[in-house]
Amino acid sequence: MSQNYDVIVIGSGPGGYPTAIRASQLGLKVAIVEKENLGGICLNWGCIPTKALLKSAQVFEYIKHAKDYGINVGESAADFGAVIKRSRGVAEGMNKGVTFLMKKNKIDVIYGTGKVVKDQSVEVTDKDGKKTVYRAGKGVVIATGARARELPNIKIDGEKVIEYRKAMSLEKQPKSLLVIGSGAIGVEFAYVYASLGTKVTIVEFLPNVVPVEDEDVSKELAKQYKKLGIDIYTNSTVEKVDTKGKGAKVFVKTPEGEKTFEVDVVLSAAGVVSNIENIGLEEVGIKTDKGKISVNQWYETSVPGFYAIGDCTPGPALAHVATAEGIIAAEKIAGHKTEALDYGNIPGCTYCQPEIASVGLTEKKAKEAGYEIKVGKFPFVASGKAKAAGAPDGFVKVIYDAKYGEFLGAHMIGYNVTELIAEVVVARKLETTAHEILRSVHPHPTISEAVKGATEVAYGEAIDL
Amino acid sequence: MSQNYDVIVIGSGPGGYPTAIRASQLGLKVAIVEKENLGGICLNWGCIPTKALLKSAQVFEYIKHAKDYGINVGESAADFGAVIKRSRGVAEGMNKGVTFLMKKNKIDVIYGTGKVVKDQSVEVTDKDGKKTVYRAGKGVVIATGARARELPNIKIDGEKVIEYRKAMSLEKQPKSLLVIGSGAIGVEFAYVYASLGTKVTIVEFLPNVVPVEDEDVSKELAKQYKKLGIDIYTNSTVEKVDTKGKGAKVFVKTPEGEKTFEVDVVLSAAGVVSNIENIGLEEVGIKTDKGKISVNQWYETSVPGFYAIGDCTPGPALAHVATAEGIIAAEKIAGHKTEALDYGNIPGCTYCQPEIASVGLTEKKAKEAGYEIKVGKFPFVASGKAKAAGAPDGFVKVIYDAKYGEFLGAHMIGYNVTELIAEVVVARKLETTAHEILRSVHPHPTISEAVKGATEVAYGEAIDL
Repeated sequence: MSQNYDVIVIGSGPGGYPTAIRASQLGLKVAIVEKENLGGICLNWGCIPTKALLKSAQVFEYIKHAKDYGINVGESAADFGAVIKRSRGVAEGMNKGVTFLMKKNKIDVIYGTGKVVKDQSVEVTDKDGKKTVYRAGKGVVIATGARARELPNIKIDGEKVIEYRKAMSLEKQPKSLLVIGSGAIGVEFAYVYASLGTKVTIVEFLPNVVPVEDEDVSKELAKQYKKLGIDIYTNSTVEKVDTKGKGAKVFVKTPEGEKTFEVDVVLSAAGVVSNIENIGLEEVGIKTDKGKISVNQWYETSVPGFYAIGDCTPGPALAHVATAEGIIAAEKIAGHKTEALDYGNIPGCTYCQPEIASVGLTEKKAKEAGYEIKVGKFPFVASGKAKAAGAPDGFVKVIYDAKYGEFLGAHMIGYNVTELIAEVVVARKLETTAHEILRSVHPHPTISEAVKGATEVAYGEAIDL
Repeated sequence: MSQNYDVIVIGSGPGGYPTAIRASQLGLKVAIVEKENLGGICLNWGCIPTKALLKSAQVFEYIKHAKDYGINVGESAADFGAVIKRSRGVAEGMNKGVTFLMKKNKIDVIYGTGKVVKDQSVEVTDKDGKKTVYRAGKGVVIATGARARELPNIKIDGEKVIEYRKAMSLEKQPKSLLVIGSGAIGVEFAYVYASLGTKVTIVEFLPNVVPVEDEDVSKELAKQYKKLGIDIYTNSTVEKVDTKGKGAKVFVKTPEGEKTFEVDVVLSAAGVVSNIENIGLEEVGIKTDKGKISVNQWYETSVPGFYAIGDCTPGPALAHVATAEGIIAAEKIAGHKTEALDYGNIPGCTYCQPEIASVGLTEKKAKEAGYEIKVGKFPFVASGKAKAAGAPDGFVKVIYDAKYGEFLGAHMIGYNVTELIAEVVVARKLETTAHEILRSVHPHPTISEAVKGATEVAYGEAIDL
């Protein structure tokens, strides 16, 4: 067995492909193993195609409200097949982009199912069942990602009970949809389908929708979704789905008692589980913990020469986290100077309308951590840009440490807020204080002014409130 | 004559009203003098109503391209009157907002034309011609703003030759429009009218449209505008407008020789001039220079007790600059700790489609200043979010100092970029280096990732290019 490569990456998602590129940039000979589509779930079945669906939904919303903007339109209708087709087309374009990037960076793409084996190697089984072993002289990076979690009592049958992947490739628009779980995936599909005319019901186990967000954000989203005609049941559990009849009969335990819903389709969006099965971890002796591969801050597993990054490891299951981890792992392997990731400064975005974006501590968590805090909230109803855009709902909420003005967290819901959160990430990276945000001239009129506006409120210096 | 107030502000635009509020917050007794509408040009005839028009244009563009997003629409048409009416409605709402803010902050609003007089006072002439003098114990702040510049050879008649104010309140949509000048105002109206179906021609004296921007941005805008069907003549001068006939006959000197255009309306958008006439400057002895009131870094004029901020002073004629200056002036007057404004870190935004945003030095200026630079450009065609949004045009360009990694400038054109520039402003305020931008996790998929992406390009670490 020869030493074929310096680095072999298993999985080409938003963790794997940047790892491979960064390693190649640093002069290493790299191969990437992919069993399905280059770009992984993110590009093919996640971040990107859902954003295409959401854009179609947003355009359709504009058309429905065209009169508010002074535009007259005749009859309009969403062509569900065309909406899906556009989304698939965008994903295919991005997939071709990654193919190009691999070629450009001289990375060998090995199609097949990868499995780690002893001696820093990877065994790849191709579609014909042929097995080949490749050795990585400097390191193997496991970036196998995650998949939809299947709840024990609710079998995903791919027809009446589906997961996100099927939800973005249905042939026919369901008349009614029940979504289990109100994390990012759940609420994004809820918005898309509700906008296109499907009757949507959300069932959430916890007391609030988007439960990782600040409570104020959760409440605002619930309010906006109700306006859209989405029914929400929180503190509720789906106990059983009966798929024997024409549609799906869903039995839900709610605080007001048992309820039964008859819907066309049930979307199970109850989180993800790491892909750690049948990839050779046990044989090589790589330790796992609670279903994830254990790693140190440089993404080294328990076995030297094997690294793991992204959704198959602990930490938030987010594309940008996987990318950041992969770059650090590649730099570590190459012996390049690098810097450990600050997991306290990872932004999260949800692309429903209104959009949600946040970073840092929620108000509750800041208090629990013992901080004395200053909180400011700037509602978009006071923003000229938001009003001109016809989007006065939502707010930016900021949380500062009262003692030193440390920027502890920002929580946003509203038009375009997913584009605002990077400012806060960079500000926190540079250890800003409130004072410096207040003295940074934000352009007028923008939605981004609300970050400064909320900070003014926190410090009793509000101008526009 | 009694001392009526601590502070009197003349003009209630985006400079004046925040000055008044900040002074009131700091415990001073404040009056504001306004001759027309609270909120000034920005709220009533500038930033805000134009953004409303631009939003209608954007919605109409979505409708025209609905099929690309999988939506079928019947016949659609912009109702010009309704578009204008919506814009006026948004402005009126904001104007009421300022009225509320004045009351909430216990600021007296004195309607009438203000004029500075000796002894730190203001003489106000009301609509009936009655004059009253008010004294400001701590300081008078002149915030009289600016108005459209009238070119010496092109008389603005308000019918066939108009300025921006009329352009947002025309009763009838012109079939053809010639715009003189391609600064922010010119190109924004060009976009609105072209989108709504008017044939638009732009004449620019300088070699590039949006001439203050980085050349790459100017070129990209020209390319996109040509796609929209807008004709652009650069290095060209309007020599004469003949309004005797049915429409306006415009004589333009272009590099290819004389051309004549027959259009319904000519929009003169050749910059602004400060409102410094008949406001008592000469009588009080306040010095001016090149048509602007001279001030020091605390906005003190040559006469103690008199301050001036915003468009009637030197510096960029931008709403957010006026606001920042007003807040500093108020803090100075109140004896509060304050900080001089860094005019090198003022963002500029233009809200046409694609949008334009920039801050800091252009490539040309950075080179002229003697910097050795690193330049990176991230085109949106490589952005998953931009492609999902159907907006792959444009780019983010960043300029770093090669020696220390100082972030010298950012220049953006594309979808939503006006919301991205605050990140760069804050980063530069905090004296970021390229390294820190690279290690700030930007959420995926967003347009904001392009700031990091362009920085990667500048440093040879590009992942997605």
